[in-house]
Amino acid sequence: MHDDVPDSHPRAESLRMRHEVIEGWEKKVVTTAGLFAHGRGEAFNYLLGEQTIPAAREAMKAAVAMLLLARAPVLSVNGNVAALVPHDLVALAGELDARIEVNLFYREEGREEAIETVLREAGATEILGLGDVEPATLNDLESNRRIVDPRGIAKADVVMVPLEDGDRTEALRKAGKKIITIDLNPLSRTAQWAHVTICDEITRCLPQMIDTAREFKQSMNEEQLKELLSEYDNAKVLSKVISFMRDYLGRLAEQGVFLDLPMEGDD
Amino acid sequence: MHDDVPDSHPRAESLRMRHEVIEGWEKKVVTTAGLFAHGRGEAFNYLLGEQTIPAAREAMKAAVAMLLLARAPVLSVNGNVAALVPHDLVALAGELDARIEVNLFYREEGREEAIETVLREAGATEILGLGDVEPATLNDLESNRRIVDPRGIAKADVVMVPLEDGDRTEALRKAGKKIITIDLNPLSRTAQWAHVTICDEITRCLPQMIDTAREFKQSMNEEQLKELLSEYDNAKVLSKVISFMRDYLGRLAEQGVFLDLPMEGDD
Repeated sequence: MHDDVPDSHPRAESLRMRHEVIEGWEKKVVTTAGLFAHGRGEAFNYLLGEQTIPAAREAMKAAVAMLLLARAPVLSVNGNVAALVPHDLVALAGELDARIEVNLFYREEGREEAIETVLREAGATEILGLGDVEPATLNDLESNRRIVDPRGIAKADVVMVPLEDGDRTEALRKAGKKIITIDLNPLSRTAQWAHVTICDEITRCLPQMIDTAREFKQSMNEEQLKELLSEYDNAKVLSKVISFMRDYLGRLAEQGVFLDLPMEGDD
Repeated sequence: MHDDVPDSHPRAESLRMRHEVIEGWEKKVVTTAGLFAHGRGEAFNYLLGEQTIPAAREAMKAAVAMLLLARAPVLSVNGNVAALVPHDLVALAGELDARIEVNLFYREEGREEAIETVLREAGATEILGLGDVEPATLNDLESNRRIVDPRGIAKADVVMVPLEDGDRTEALRKAGKKIITIDLNPLSRTAQWAHVTICDEITRCLPQMIDTAREFKQSMNEEQLKELLSEYDNAKVLSKVISFMRDYLGRLAEQGVFLDLPMEGDD
């Protein structure tokens, strides 16, 4: 497939990211459902102009403050996260002193092992949520995702669930957790249910979160972090993201056709 | 996977459509790239409120008129089309007296045969574009898609290319064809390059096109069809579609969080 996408293709960068997801899928890290989810994300990324917008920066700062203030923070990892950003995820957990927990909707044979391998190769030393402990459960969930690790999400106060399913996010919130997500779709149930929603593409987002964590640890004390967090309003941030997309479409709507097409008669 | 999606899931209908695509993929009809593309379509379908909007109806009517007036109309079929709407596609070709041509970006072994089987089972008697003829080529294409059937697209005046890749659409237009597409994304290169762009979900769209074709054949003569077509403005229709999405986002942007979440303290 790589060979079929010439560099001249206008979506070459986006297609190359896809290939990472496909490689993850070939290794059983990503599920088939994860391929659809990635495609959906591409659409919303396009509506963001494929850039980190100011509202996403604002959410990142609140997320880092929340994670630094947490008593027991956990970064949740699923297949798409493991395929796209294993190194950054491990580095961020290190900066934040957070635990890493794998949580999977689809527990096919060999999948946990494949994700574990990817994370170990990226430098993870402790990975929770794998099949070697008696699981705890979250209420209100009809699927596998109610299973959590008693050492991790079960006792966490703050959980970051990037690229997460809506049912899971809802259950985590109802279980009293503070939820952070990274989700390109500001309309998704996960984006809506989270306390802090970072609408950004995850490979753009995580390096910025790592930098922010380093910066905040040097420059801010607990009071300052609490103040930053108390001023944060996720509904306003989501509103800014949706407004950005609306305005983007608004500019294009004026013309309808905006590509530089040949005139009729030339073509 | 079916068993993991409870009926109570708020996206159950959308997930069931996905399963048809996955089944197509298991039969080699749909490629991995087709799964991403479907996910991207889901996002734009959501922005349409998962309904046929008036601008899409307008485009459908122009499309049917263009196909009825065509000297040599061809309906192009790729993997996702074959997986989602084989029966409707064959029925529409019958109503329009149009030929069916399979055109594939990814020509893996067994794929043409799988698509042929699906179309034959849906009642197709003639299927062009399969590997049994010396192919013609379209200029300006770096991929497999430059190959077309000399009996079909090569000599067609009007080609309908639903769910099509941008390179292909551009090449067909530059080759002097009149292009109709069905594409949920009004911003895609295919949507932009086509002469008639129907921004609608294909399983909603094709039954309406079949009805429209029957209706027009009974009620309209050639002059009336030409008049309908001469009044059609694709840029205006695309503008209406993008405006619809913009307004949809605008309403949601006012609140930011619009799901009925429990109040802080309740959860």
